[in-house]
Amino acid sequence: MADKNKTETDTKITLPQGYQVFTYAAGIKYEGRKDLGVLISARPASYAGVFTTNRVQAAPVKLCRERLGFPIRALVVNTGSANACTGEEGEQAARRVAEIAEAEFALPRKSALSLSTGVIGTPLPLEKFEPALRAIASAAGAGNVNTPEDFARAIMTTDTVPKMAERNLGIANDKEIRICGFAKGAGMISPQMATMLAFIITDLDIRAKDLQCALLAGLGGSFNAITVDGDMSTNDSVILLANGASETRLCCREDTLAFREALAEVMQSLALQVVRDGEGATKLVTIEVTGARNTRDAELAARAIANSLLVKTAFFGNDPNWGRIIDVAGYSGARLCEEKMELFYLDRIIYAQGRPLAFDREDMIRKLAQTREITIRLDLGVGRAKRTLYTTDLSYEYVKINAEYTS
Amino acid sequence: MADKNKTETDTKITLPQGYQVFTYAAGIKYEGRKDLGVLISARPASYAGVFTTNRVQAAPVKLCRERLGFPIRALVVNTGSANACTGEEGEQAARRVAEIAEAEFALPRKSALSLSTGVIGTPLPLEKFEPALRAIASAAGAGNVNTPEDFARAIMTTDTVPKMAERNLGIANDKEIRICGFAKGAGMISPQMATMLAFIITDLDIRAKDLQCALLAGLGGSFNAITVDGDMSTNDSVILLANGASETRLCCREDTLAFREALAEVMQSLALQVVRDGEGATKLVTIEVTGARNTRDAELAARAIANSLLVKTAFFGNDPNWGRIIDVAGYSGARLCEEKMELFYLDRIIYAQGRPLAFDREDMIRKLAQTREITIRLDLGVGRAKRTLYTTDLSYEYVKINAEYTS
Repeated sequence: MADKNKTETDTKITLPQGYQVFTYAAGIKYEGRKDLGVLISARPASYAGVFTTNRVQAAPVKLCRERLGFPIRALVVNTGSANACTGEEGEQAARRVAEIAEAEFALPRKSALSLSTGVIGTPLPLEKFEPALRAIASAAGAGNVNTPEDFARAIMTTDTVPKMAERNLGIANDKEIRICGFAKGAGMISPQMATMLAFIITDLDIRAKDLQCALLAGLGGSFNAITVDGDMSTNDSVILLANGASETRLCCREDTLAFREALAEVMQSLALQVVRDGEGATKLVTIEVTGARNTRDAELAARAIANSLLVKTAFFGNDPNWGRIIDVAGYSGARLCEEKMELFYLDRIIYAQGRPLAFDREDMIRKLAQTREITIRLDLGVGRAKRTLYTTDLSYEYVKINAEYTS
Repeated sequence: MADKNKTETDTKITLPQGYQVFTYAAGIKYEGRKDLGVLISARPASYAGVFTTNRVQAAPVKLCRERLGFPIRALVVNTGSANACTGEEGEQAARRVAEIAEAEFALPRKSALSLSTGVIGTPLPLEKFEPALRAIASAAGAGNVNTPEDFARAIMTTDTVPKMAERNLGIANDKEIRICGFAKGAGMISPQMATMLAFIITDLDIRAKDLQCALLAGLGGSFNAITVDGDMSTNDSVILLANGASETRLCCREDTLAFREALAEVMQSLALQVVRDGEGATKLVTIEVTGARNTRDAELAARAIANSLLVKTAFFGNDPNWGRIIDVAGYSGARLCEEKMELFYLDRIIYAQGRPLAFDREDMIRKLAQTREITIRLDLGVGRAKRTLYTTDLSYEYVKINAEYTS
């Protein structure tokens, strides 16, 4: 799978053929910043998507689900209001935003999607979308496009950095296809089937059904493997578009695997960028659980450790407080064998056979203080299943951001 | 059930007949404070206990489980070391502490229990227990007992206040029995069957089997209804002793119910004292979930809300960010009906029929800032089951305490 060292934001990325992006300061919540992003495909794009499994789903998520299977030409993405818990009015607003975009860009009906993040429960200020989308359409007519980075910035909420990734893929018939992705999200991150918002676009020519399979294949190692605070959003959406502008199809099993791998790399890169930018985070923590009875148990233990406040505050304090990790594994519900468990901290084994091993604590604290990336591995000692998750530490700053981020 | 307004620490409590407490500065981890408490019953006491359901159990928990059913004469409680994850040596150490106490106080074999909390994974410094217990026994011989408050303070770790409660109970034959309880705990609080450490003693004459039933009956509304950080400890224990020194038995069903109610009140009082003293807590938050399909669903939703970082930081910020509560209910796994859900915040309905209701936000913020006790009620709109849990907000101070509390 992807090399973790390659997961920093790709700051200079090139859009695949046949896509353009636009941004605008619509004043939805924030003043003096771009808060609306529009992505246009010159051709109808095959569309795949995965969404939050929260039983409460935001209006834009409902709209995006309805349109699965339709060819898509436009994404309209706002920050500042999540359009969630807004009832029937919210659903009408999401549909209306898509309609305005379809009208302004002269696109077929139901070819636009509306996506939102921000505060839950505030109505979408529809009156601000019409002039904004008209201005964007007129800029587009004049050839004034924005850069991929502009787009990545326009969709941010509490994010501190824009999140982008790309891979280019030469396949069997010597043609090149491009995959390029954007994500936003820093808090309320504990996706099951998706994360906050991610958009991945490619110029590959592929059917929606095959596109959906490729998207699902990449989920387990990317958006479903991260957590910042254990809170699953009402708005999580990962949207994947393929507009075929490269005039290139996947002709053999090898091509398909190469595409899926490149796509999975883009997805994992975006997911890790979300964790790195986790609210208040000072560390990226990789939790590897091995030796589990089955995958469910490995997931249970890894997720409980990744979400434990005591574990996360210890990481913030550069404290190798391994006892908290053993404790969490114990209550996670996963089966374990205390006498066979092993815990590795920065590649050093520090607990085995039910008891702590001697280690140089001061040296470990020094090493922890010097690194922004920590890996711990816990072997449960009962089987062969494993699971890797990515999480953050928990800092004062997280509390500050979320106590002050006003509803 | 118990009146929540009566749950502040009872600072002046009287031990039931036939019990004495002693404390000592044994220097186990902290310097210059009492860190060892001993409770002695003049008669063999019926003994009931409930313990953590964590798969990793501390050595003292294993010892206390083994001795269920035995008549008990002594509890030896230390802070500073949890004697958890310490292997076979740890189990021997817990047994050895009990043996020393039995020898020094001339008690029958297996009549003492050893209980510990503190850092996980450090060996119990056995060499400090022998002189300490000898000194205590000699003080006891000279009639130098300590006060209940001394005992409650000696068992504290990150607690900021001692936790005690008592109820006196006149029953049918005009005799009086006393119930008196102690607890410690402020972090790693999310008990399932018990909390950190609680000791409840009574002079009632009752069989161990009936005592255990009474203890279990009180759990749901007390120790199993609280969470500070969602982390279940390896050491959670609730110990209930009844030494019969009042020469009084429960003679009818009415007496039994009266005893159970008084016991449940003591338990709830102690449990709420633990939450109020939750690490860094500035608020006691009561989460009432109603209208659930069944009790399991009500518990799922209430627990998810009570443990959500986003909900807890909003309480800290005095922000009526109700959208986060709806979001959490949505991912909790509980069945809900979005169109019938209702949310009450400080007794005001602010969300109904799938959309927010107008309310005076500034007034609500002012009210939240003025109170240390917040109640929210969420009706899931699908049934009649309900569950009430008690939790805290999440403050900078929680992060500070747990990033700095050294392993």
